[in-house]
Amino acid sequence: MSTFGKLFRVTTFGESHCASVGAIIDGCPPGLQLAAEDIQVQLDRRRPGQSDLTTPRNEKDRVHLQSGLEHGVTLGTPIALLVRNEDQRPHDYSETDLYPRPSHADYTYLEKYGVKASSGGGRSSARETVGRVAAGAIAEHYLKLAHGVEIVAFVSSVGKIHIPVTDPSAVDDADNDDAPEPLSAEYRRLLSTVSRADVDAHLTRCPHVETAERMKNRIIRAKAASDSIGGTVTCVIRNLPTGLGEPVFDKFEAVLAHAMLSIPATKGFEFGSGFRGAEVPGSVHNDKFSKRPDGSLGTETNWSGGVQGGITNGEDVYFRLSFKSPATISQAQETAQYDGTPGSLEARGRHDPCVVPRAVPIVEAMAALVAMDLLMIQKSRQAATALLPPITTLPPTMVMPPKRS
Amino acid sequence: MSTFGKLFRVTTFGESHCASVGAIIDGCPPGLQLAAEDIQVQLDRRRPGQSDLTTPRNEKDRVHLQSGLEHGVTLGTPIALLVRNEDQRPHDYSETDLYPRPSHADYTYLEKYGVKASSGGGRSSARETVGRVAAGAIAEHYLKLAHGVEIVAFVSSVGKIHIPVTDPSAVDDADNDDAPEPLSAEYRRLLSTVSRADVDAHLTRCPHVETAERMKNRIIRAKAASDSIGGTVTCVIRNLPTGLGEPVFDKFEAVLAHAMLSIPATKGFEFGSGFRGAEVPGSVHNDKFSKRPDGSLGTETNWSGGVQGGITNGEDVYFRLSFKSPATISQAQETAQYDGTPGSLEARGRHDPCVVPRAVPIVEAMAALVAMDLLMIQKSRQAATALLPPITTLPPTMVMPPKRS
Amino acid sequence: MSTFGKLFRVTTFGESHCASVGAIIDGCPPGLQLAAEDIQVQLDRRRPGQSDLTTPRNEKDRVHLQSGLEHGVTLGTPIALLVRNEDQRPHDYSETDLYPRPSHADYTYLEKYGVKASSGGGRSSARETVGRVAAGAIAEHYLKLAHGVEIVAFVSSVGKIHIPVTDPSAVDDADNDDAPEPLSAEYRRLLSTVSRADVDAHLTRCPHVETAERMKNRIIRAKAASDSIGGTVTCVIRNLPTGLGEPVFDKFEAVLAHAMLSIPATKGFEFGSGFRGAEVPGSVHNDKFSKRPDGSLGTETNWSGGVQGGITNGEDVYFRLSFKSPATISQAQETAQYDGTPGSLEARGRHDPCVVPRAVPIVEAMAALVAMDLLMIQKSRQAATALLPPITTLPPTMVMPPKRS
Amino acid sequence: MSTFGKLFRVTTFGESHCASVGAIIDGCPPGLQLAAEDIQVQLDRRRPGQSDLTTPRNEKDRVHLQSGLEHGVTLGTPIALLVRNEDQRPHDYSETDLYPRPSHADYTYLEKYGVKASSGGGRSSARETVGRVAAGAIAEHYLKLAHGVEIVAFVSSVGKIHIPVTDPSAVDDADNDDAPEPLSAEYRRLLSTVSRADVDAHLTRCPHVETAERMKNRIIRAKAASDSIGGTVTCVIRNLPTGLGEPVFDKFEAVLAHAMLSIPATKGFEFGSGFRGAEVPGSVHNDKFSKRPDGSLGTETNWSGGVQGGITNGEDVYFRLSFKSPATISQAQETAQYDGTPGSLEARGRHDPCVVPRAVPIVEAMAALVAMDLLMIQKSRQAATALLPPITTLPPTMVMPPKRS
Repeated sequence: MSTFGKLFRVTTFGESHCASVGAIIDGCPPGLQLAAEDIQVQLDRRRPGQSDLTTPRNEKDRVHLQSGLEHGVTLGTPIALLVRNEDQRPHDYSETDLYPRPSHADYTYLEKYGVKASSGGGRSSARETVGRVAAGAIAEHYLKLAHGVEIVAFVSSVGKIHIPVTDPSAVDDADNDDAPEPLSAEYRRLLSTVSRADVDAHLTRCPHVETAERMKNRIIRAKAASDSIGGTVTCVIRNLPTGLGEPVFDKFEAVLAHAMLSIPATKGFEFGSGFRGAEVPGSVHNDKFSKRPDGSLGTETNWSGGVQGGITNGEDVYFRLSFKSPATISQAQETAQYDGTPGSLEARGRHDPCVVPRAVPIVEAMAALVAMDLLMIQKSRQAATALLPPITTLPPTMVMPPKRS
Repeated sequence: MSTFGKLFRVTTFGESHCASVGAIIDGCPPGLQLAAEDIQVQLDRRRPGQSDLTTPRNEKDRVHLQSGLEHGVTLGTPIALLVRNEDQRPHDYSETDLYPRPSHADYTYLEKYGVKASSGGGRSSARETVGRVAAGAIAEHYLKLAHGVEIVAFVSSVGKIHIPVTDPSAVDDADNDDAPEPLSAEYRRLLSTVSRADVDAHLTRCPHVETAERMKNRIIRAKAASDSIGGTVTCVIRNLPTGLGEPVFDKFEAVLAHAMLSIPATKGFEFGSGFRGAEVPGSVHNDKFSKRPDGSLGTETNWSGGVQGGITNGEDVYFRLSFKSPATISQAQETAQYDGTPGSLEARGRHDPCVVPRAVPIVEAMAALVAMDLLMIQKSRQAATALLPPITTLPPTMVMPPKRS
Repeated sequence: MSTFGKLFRVTTFGESHCASVGAIIDGCPPGLQLAAEDIQVQLDRRRPGQSDLTTPRNEKDRVHLQSGLEHGVTLGTPIALLVRNEDQRPHDYSETDLYPRPSHADYTYLEKYGVKASSGGGRSSARETVGRVAAGAIAEHYLKLAHGVEIVAFVSSVGKIHIPVTDPSAVDDADNDDAPEPLSAEYRRLLSTVSRADVDAHLTRCPHVETAERMKNRIIRAKAASDSIGGTVTCVIRNLPTGLGEPVFDKFEAVLAHAMLSIPATKGFEFGSGFRGAEVPGSVHNDKFSKRPDGSLGTETNWSGGVQGGITNGEDVYFRLSFKSPATISQAQETAQYDGTPGSLEARGRHDPCVVPRAVPIVEAMAALVAMDLLMIQKSRQAATALLPPITTLPPTMVMPPKRS
Repeated sequence: MSTFGKLFRVTTFGESHCASVGAIIDGCPPGLQLAAEDIQVQLDRRRPGQSDLTTPRNEKDRVHLQSGLEHGVTLGTPIALLVRNEDQRPHDYSETDLYPRPSHADYTYLEKYGVKASSGGGRSSARETVGRVAAGAIAEHYLKLAHGVEIVAFVSSVGKIHIPVTDPSAVDDADNDDAPEPLSAEYRRLLSTVSRADVDAHLTRCPHVETAERMKNRIIRAKAASDSIGGTVTCVIRNLPTGLGEPVFDKFEAVLAHAMLSIPATKGFEFGSGFRGAEVPGSVHNDKFSKRPDGSLGTETNWSGGVQGGITNGEDVYFRLSFKSPATISQAQETAQYDGTPGSLEARGRHDPCVVPRAVPIVEAMAALVAMDLLMIQKSRQAATALLPPITTLPPTMVMPPKRS
């Protein structure tokens, strides 16, 4: 379906060659000061043609707000917005129409809908993400104003080039039951401090200087080889309130995984210690509690990734997302036509050798949508409970723990 | 929320110390022959106490069907089912009530709900999964009868002990742009043939004989060390029809990720080539098409994991899920009380040193629920389109590809 | 579907001859003190066999709470509850199985589900309402504690016997453009003061003494004639906060109508001035504002029924619901068998000549569910907006109206 | 919320003074031939300024399709459409801003959202219905092509001027237990034959010639008196398949009531025998079955209004909807300002003395949306059940009734 969220609901529309792409955001809190520029800044980061690492297409992608605001203030009613498509003409017939493109959605869209659209993969085009990014920018704007939430995504790997994650001196072989800590102290520092300015300082959107340079070269090599290369994006959400996430099916990480895997070309998601967390014994993996300076409870480590039992605990939420190598490449591929006839397919159209730098604002947008929706659900519960008379007859086991001071 | 699905909807209830746990399954197709035993078999595989690798608690966990069936046939009305809790008494007050258990949900449940339950983490208990497994067994039963769908999950790693996935002879270093194929031919063979009997032949539920033995020893070492260890579960879904998955937010893999990350203790999810897919160039990663014996299109490789553009393509869907090391361990932990006072917490209660073998039927259940719901949505679209008159005036680009023969 | 609500969600299960009927209530605010008795009291009012005006069947209908509470306090987790069916055996084959009962759901259930259940109309049985009444009692309990909300329903007509609604002296003919006020001052007084004690003082649950007696006789006459008779139930909700109802599709009255028409045997719904409101000129129908003693705005009349633009305005919400005459009657009916063969069908089973007295708690339950869910949605919005910084640059038209004092 | 439907989902946006109003229709079956004109025809019927009985404003209201179609064929992806607002400027400050207009939504919108919009009642404006009518036209287009469904609404009363419904010779007093049939034979003939051409033959959209003339005069009198008058709209849906409607909360009539009461200014809904059905004994009210010429079962009478147990039975669905007299009138009203100060408010802006003729296409649109969504849900169930193996061991009571011939 094209709708995401329960209280803060986003419905997107549009494909590559129609009149416009966009979204309706329903359920935005009223009284939020919002300018088109708050949205445009993230659309610009998503836009192709920002560097010679990405496709040369120069889309303007200006957002047009249709409703839901007056004098720059949200009314609480649906905010509709759209971005015009520059190239609205369905493409002309060509020989390549005989072929479903390998690892594209041409074949599956045809199997699903039974209609052959000009754009082949229809809504699986990256163009569709315009509506998400715009909607996410609104959610993020709220989260920042209301809770000081910070969401920063960055490129953590391109091909086999990774920002170093674990301590290189750690011993890690299968014969040894010990395992190194999932993340080095240096990497944890990066997570807790990285800013969008740090990220945008590099064309690759990797804030780790040496790695950024190696990634850039890897992308250039892919382009030179008429090939493509994938990568991963890591994202951190800071200052989230505790209590977000709805057990049992809408745990914070479950909804987050849903949101992230809905982004085109994604293949994997891990949060906190992720796949490495399965290799570390419980005695090391457990996040012990300690008193924070402000008197509240915090955890010393954060292998939980800010979530326990599906509910945020006030620590940073961080996660990593895998993007496959783009399916469109500038070399011939031996494959089959729709009718099974074998043949060679030459690429058509514009394409990026590596999409992960442009994926950064999309990941941030989806993270914001998840946090915003789960925040609004939790606010409802808290407000409802706050109106109840106190209970005076509880047994000792249910007595609330002593107030922190 | 405690409801999963749009047309085939499961709502679960229950925590550790209440009268019963269970579920209502709403939207099950009528006319399905269903016996309690079809459900019980998976509940028994989920049940603790099946071996000395797991907790000695011997729950009986008999399912009691309440409604929605007559003479063993589904009526199409809600199927309610419940499993009684043996231990219904809230526990007595103890010194450990002062402490939120590290990496458990005690602290976050309290932050979220503001009520201190006897069971601490409330619905984050593994006991909650009873309802899912029962509901999933019904979905799976339908999928098998209607489409011959096979769902098999198995333990693919415990700690650092993994079933070998890639060809050990492959060169894989960061200085080399080439990358080995994400999965070896042998492993792909395993995925396409593994059965539940193969899986249950080992206490560890790992169908790879040598690895199974090493895993068993790893679990025994964890137990001996009063510690715990995590692992991964891999699952394959075979014979799924094409066309399942709802662009753009409810792509097959997105809903699958949602379902999987809603299982307690999970930290990561990848499908198809997963995180490895980001390291392989597009020219290698693309799944080229070829004609199958029956005339339809298939792909030679399947790095896509059976899904393209969020829609199933008829190839096997396979994915891997990471489970952290259990938080409950039999050793003292230095942590803090609710009020911030530092102290040492001794474990209480029964616990598994490793939960992944028992997670196998839970993963299968959630996979079945995802496939079932998305199947029913797609059935609606197909049936609706089938009633429309044919269109005779399409331009060449929209003309349907020649029929396969 | 068997689920109602978005944040306070009720899912019911069960039909006449299965093991139990019941519900899961998901999303109940935590920290609510709740006893089984708070629920039982409404189940008892719904129960048949309370008088010789209704069916002699004496069901015990004890509610069994399964989960979601500890020491009588809600945990915020799903509350499952069930009521056992006394008569769990599917009935034996009988000649009447050849006939779909006229104006029952036997025929449509068969058309819909393609499975012939013992109970014929399956979930259309009044037995299904047990789950609603129990869930509604929980919602009502919250609403009363948190906002002092009062919900009172009563029988306003049986057959052609109505509580007098308009002033009998008013002229009301089609040639005269004037129309009497939709409700007399006396009736409005009844609405604003009627209590459950007033209602239960009469077997017919009509709080208007003379009318109650006439209704009773009408029901007795129906029974004597081996026939049945319908009626209407009127309900008032007092002390609802302003701001409830979600434009545009989930206006308060729209969700209320949905809830009410989901009750078996209902045929019509009107709120406020209802159908009479269409006959009164706007100059009379408009509810003019005036200052209330507490400084807030109120309306002098309340033809709007407490709702304007789909949102509650703080005045009493009141509405009326029509129930058809019960389809089961103790006389032979000339009709056709499933295969079209004409024949005469004799009634089987127990039945009420008039169901409206027992419908009273069902109407109250559904009203509570609607108010509760829309309240929780609005709480979320208010809490979210409350966190935003004030806006200082509004144009005069958007400046908030002066505070009431 | 601004979304309606579960599989065929409509999300609308827009208020009076923003850039545009419109909708996204998600879940439309692919392969449907659809032209803008199919939508425009109903928008034109909704448009004000069609006669001197309605407001003189002449909006052009051209629909602009944004996505989801190629070469006039639906792709199965979201169809976005918009209609530009001619008057996009928020109005200037005026003295009337001090007053909440009586029986408008100015006060409740302010209570709900806490933001004072230029248009006062925000989305409660009739302008919002543009998106519904457009979406409904698409649904209706499908229903007609796939099932030959016909939806015709008409004005059945204005003020106290009604199309005669019951037989005038029938005796109907409270002292007589008999009641006339809810609808005369003549009226039932009208329901089964009335066409849109019949309806549009009269400015009042009343297809009953003598009544149409009297209604017209009633509206002229209201205008002359600077007043307004309400009315009712009756709608019939013909050729609906059996089996639509989802027990228990989404019965066909419950969803229909929800949809209808979400239309601005509505106060009541009844279907089939409606409120009259409560006065007729069961022996008369029951719809006896008989064999239709084609061998299927039909009912001789249709007091059920085409629905039994919440599920369509193949007979005509018909219902009636009440619209209050418009709140905007051209005369001064004694009321209070936001701060409680009493005063006299003069009307501003354009307004209709009677809105029911224009409501006709809105009622048809919402009826189409309900039927379409419930049809798609039922299609899913049927398709799912059709794949199951037959059951050979049923007891006699569950054996399917003999096939009709």
